[in-house]
Amino acid sequence: LRAVDVIERKRDGLELSPEEIDLFVSRYSRGEIPDYQAAALAMAVFLRGMSPAETLALTRAMRDSGEVLDLSTIPGPKVDKHSTGGVGDKTSLILAPLAAACGVVVPMISGRGLGHTGGTLDKLESIPGFRTDLTLGQLRSVLEQCGVALVGQTPEIAPADRRLYALRDVTATVESLPLIAASIMSKKMAEGISALVLDVKTGDGAFLPDAADARALAQAMIDIGRGLGCRVTALLTDMEQPLGRGLGNALEVAECLEVLRGEGPPDTRALSVELAARMVHLGGLETSLEAARERVGRALEGGHGLARFRRVVELQGGDPRICDEPGRLPRSRDRIELRAERRGFVTRLACRAVGRAIMLLGAGRETVDGTIDAAVGLVLHKKVGDPVEMGEPFLTAHVNDRRRLDEALGILASALEIDEGPPPAAPLVREVAT
Amino acid sequence: LRAVDVIERKRDGLELSPEEIDLFVSRYSRGEIPDYQAAALAMAVFLRGMSPAETLALTRAMRDSGEVLDLSTIPGPKVDKHSTGGVGDKTSLILAPLAAACGVVVPMISGRGLGHTGGTLDKLESIPGFRTDLTLGQLRSVLEQCGVALVGQTPEIAPADRRLYALRDVTATVESLPLIAASIMSKKMAEGISALVLDVKTGDGAFLPDAADARALAQAMIDIGRGLGCRVTALLTDMEQPLGRGLGNALEVAECLEVLRGEGPPDTRALSVELAARMVHLGGLETSLEAARERVGRALEGGHGLARFRRVVELQGGDPRICDEPGRLPRSRDRIELRAERRGFVTRLACRAVGRAIMLLGAGRETVDGTIDAAVGLVLHKKVGDPVEMGEPFLTAHVNDRRRLDEALGILASALEIDEGPPPAAPLVREVAT
Repeated sequence: LRAVDVIERKRDGLELSPEEIDLFVSRYSRGEIPDYQAAALAMAVFLRGMSPAETLALTRAMRDSGEVLDLSTIPGPKVDKHSTGGVGDKTSLILAPLAAACGVVVPMISGRGLGHTGGTLDKLESIPGFRTDLTLGQLRSVLEQCGVALVGQTPEIAPADRRLYALRDVTATVESLPLIAASIMSKKMAEGISALVLDVKTGDGAFLPDAADARALAQAMIDIGRGLGCRVTALLTDMEQPLGRGLGNALEVAECLEVLRGEGPPDTRALSVELAARMVHLGGLETSLEAARERVGRALEGGHGLARFRRVVELQGGDPRICDEPGRLPRSRDRIELRAERRGFVTRLACRAVGRAIMLLGAGRETVDGTIDAAVGLVLHKKVGDPVEMGEPFLTAHVNDRRRLDEALGILASALEIDEGPPPAAPLVREVAT
Repeated sequence: LRAVDVIERKRDGLELSPEEIDLFVSRYSRGEIPDYQAAALAMAVFLRGMSPAETLALTRAMRDSGEVLDLSTIPGPKVDKHSTGGVGDKTSLILAPLAAACGVVVPMISGRGLGHTGGTLDKLESIPGFRTDLTLGQLRSVLEQCGVALVGQTPEIAPADRRLYALRDVTATVESLPLIAASIMSKKMAEGISALVLDVKTGDGAFLPDAADARALAQAMIDIGRGLGCRVTALLTDMEQPLGRGLGNALEVAECLEVLRGEGPPDTRALSVELAARMVHLGGLETSLEAARERVGRALEGGHGLARFRRVVELQGGDPRICDEPGRLPRSRDRIELRAERRGFVTRLACRAVGRAIMLLGAGRETVDGTIDAAVGLVLHKKVGDPVEMGEPFLTAHVNDRRRLDEALGILASALEIDEGPPPAAPLVREVAT
């Protein structure tokens, strides 16, 4: 088997065999196939697509390029959640300890933010001392002690994906549905989980704004899960506006603590509880979804989720006092309020634009090697559907670096739309696919 | 300008600007853009195509990545010929000295053979002592002394094309019409010529068998020539059967010498004279094509072409005695005759299959780093349209290495088709495009 023949077959729109894909990926992973051949194949896949069988084979090959966790010695169902990313999408920090408090084991391996979307690792690292760069041994130890671990990708997990992802980033081959699905699932399938809940964002602020694309991505990942013996449920959820009110790393952690205390914005709370309930149900701890929702609700009300979060923060080197004193989280020097220029109802908060403004304030990265400021971001006082008076503040920007402030504030002023009547209500969970 | 943005635009089917192409090629040529980004762009070009303006910009950028010859101090029109390659396609060795004998200056930079097609450099190097690896200074000196030089690509000529071509070979991006056209023309346009005659082969043994593809390639190269101030005429010529009778490097040189002596197979002679006449005409030495043909005919009959060939062989280090004693060319140890199994007329000599058989005998390369045997090949006793008796030899194989002999002979036996009646006559020059 020659690499150039595999590239040629995909170039011509033919279906690659699992053997061809296995060999290409394993040889690429060992450095026997150079980046330029992988780049040509990635572009051919981008433009020609991949069948479900090819996508499955690619996922399996990338998973098997590294270690696959065996968590069988830890009692309880192993279930994770993955989100395709959005603005203010902070549910992991709530649902992971909540699900753990209900008996689910959650070995959550997350990523960093890029562009207008945030990343779980960045949010966690706004907690003073919190370490996400655990070894697989440390991950196991944290899991054994509190049922949840929140870590970054280690070099042992799907190294072929790591190498291919870096290559796709510089060869304009990121936005390929089969490559996205295989990349996500190869890492998740290495976690040793038996079930996975997917939060596939759709709408303006999502990675894939179009609902049909989001649905296709969800289906591709469900198919991969089925092929690899993992139960998968996907929720298509709304990202036409940011989730919750706090946007930016420390501000999002603060909101998560509010929710874990039984407070916080209703959309963040509702989605976190729903996703946690899906994990409990899919993990087999409750036979009905309704019972799973009630169980998660009780864990939230009883403070068990917050207790788990405090424990995991402590185990991963973070300062657990932030759980009761959120004022210990990083805070920006300045606050700037933006005010509504007319009265009416908020009909739109252009989500991608808001995400970009947060990035310009320093909360996100424009390129993979950018640095972030944990303290900065936004607090939304108004969300879509809320009434607003003329001159009323609709958001507060938390600011340190003012170099791109004007650009960010200009984007934010244009992101808000106000009309005379309220917009039609939009459900947060649009569809469920299994 | 970021390389990834250029790749993305081409990936999405947009037209790249000349500035984008210039920058990409010049940065690639300087090693500032890595092979993996060039590979991704090449695959995007393969699948999305390039407009004439993009192809022109690519050609210009690759030409300008190296030196462009200035031959203005040598008197006479500078004209070259390029063939897209075929089986037994040996006209360069005849027409170059013939055109030079008529007053054209021919700075011919050629390539090597690959797969079923032969290469001019390989044929020349079957002449004992003949050197094709001349420096640009030596090329100029030979041109000044005899009006024709027959050399290989130097490192100074279109280095970006050299690097990109090697990359395309291993990334399944060779057979792209705009990339082929730009690659050929970038080298030819660096020769400092004012006119170019193209011999675009079509039919079974051609690089592009389909006539529509060949026509499109011809048109793309004519358009590039127009954009870069070079007069270009393209002849679409038949490659349904090999050209001439001698196939294989020394056997082809021997046939060229026959033609230059006024003998040799009529198809090789006719095509060589026609192409040389086009060069004389396009170079402005005769105002009518008919007068150019007569001038070339006189040069041939007067032995002036042979004299020029003898001179260039001598100047490039070769043994000029081969011109009068072709027995001094390399000869194989063994001869094997293949005989017709029925009587009738030859209706087909499957050209690509014959080319492959010659390669298997050792006359060609399967991969770019393969070695060749100058002595081996075939002599065809029968060509399409010829009557044949049962048991009559239709070809003689000239053999040294017998390792793949059976495979080659099997292919050759199947390549011949005999029918009761003669096939319709097919013209050698199918179309002329300017």
